Amino acid sequence: MELLKERILREGKVLSGDIVKVDGFLNHLVDVELMKELAREFRRRFSDERITKIVTVEASGIALGAICAQEFGVPMLFAKKAKSDNIEGGLLQSEIFSYTYKKKVTLIMSSQWISDADRVLIVDDFLANGEALRGLTEIVRAAGAEIAGIGIAIEKGFQGGGDKLRAVGYNVQSLAIIDGIEDGKVRFREDGAH
Amino acid sequence: MELLKERILREGKVLSGDIVKVDGFLNHLVDVELMKELAREFRRRFSDERITKIVTVEASGIALGAICAQEFGVPMLFAKKAKSDNIEGGLLQSEIFSYTYKKKVTLIMSSQWISDADRVLIVDDFLANGEALRGLTEIVRAAGAEIAGIGIAIEKGFQGGGDKLRAVGYNVQSLAIIDGIEDGKVRFREDGAH
Repeated sequence: MELLKERILREGKVLSGDIVKVDGFLNHLVDVELMKELAREFRRRFSDERITKIVTVEASGIALGAICAQEFGVPMLFAKKAKSDNIEGGLLQSEIFSYTYKKKVTLIMSSQWISDADRVLIVDDFLANGEALRGLTEIVRAAGAEIAGIGIAIEKGFQGGGDKLRAVGYNVQSLAIIDGIEDGKVRFREDGAH
Repeated sequence: MELLKERILREGKVLSGDIVKVDGFLNHLVDVELMKELAREFRRRFSDERITKIVTVEASGIALGAICAQEFGVPMLFAKKAKSDNIEGGLLQSEIFSYTYKKKVTLIMSSQWISDADRVLIVDDFLANGEALRGLTEIVRAAGAEIAGIGIAIEKGFQGGGDKLRAVGYNVQSLAIIDGIEDGKVRFREDGAH
């Protein structure tokens, strides 16, 4: 999606360690008008999927998730990151490795709010190694719900998480895929080349 | 606001320890249509304030924050909860006590995205003892920005955080104020009685 790619080129900052910082419009200061455009694009790409629920994970996925839910006219449900080992009953859960915090984190979701009647669109602002998405897909499947698609704002293609999800059959639609960073500049994958 | 109060009465669950669970529409499964109505009400109550930025705190404030930002036509900025003691430079911060996690948590925000040119509306889904709000007001003031108001979905009035903020001069507008829980039922404060 050209609008998002231009924004990344204009305002994103490439840091050491292949980090692309987009905290001026995506995941700290949030440009909700841009979010609306991303949500419209997901709506276009998943128009035939009869989505009943948007699922995401705290924290930065929630802004995009909420605005996608508006666009699709359905509720949004977000997985929480367990802060303690005491996890109450009635919860779906999946253990993932967080590269940000360099430790295991348990994603949790109440089984009360998702069922086999749901057709879910999973959304997130970022997809890199795909650990968070793996956890979300596990939880949604454990609830018996159908994963109708996965919508991502920015995918770091060179970290492989997205292609791993595509390889097992998920319809992963990323609006900008960064395939490499060279001399401090991002290089995008061609549209449709995944 | 009657719409929200009715929803709390109909779908909220009173648990032991004065906890009111509203995770079926506010802070786990999120009814974004309801959020839109809350945002419209804030817009009405703060219409003269020339708001330039919505500020909230992760995680559950983000959904309401994003939809308020849309309604006001401004960006949303959310404070993060520091996950480690290694906090990089250029960050505004405030230490609060989290009653949920029973420990100190540091709220952080990049000083790059807020300045003395901003007139901020702080929003959050819940206000109880007011620790998170105290932290947010500290950070926003440290940035030199003006706090034009505080908009809360549900205030637990009997925990005193809201009235403490009002006492020091903030315009705190809560759309439902729970003043007590008796025999497992919530009792609301009369509108305009704060």
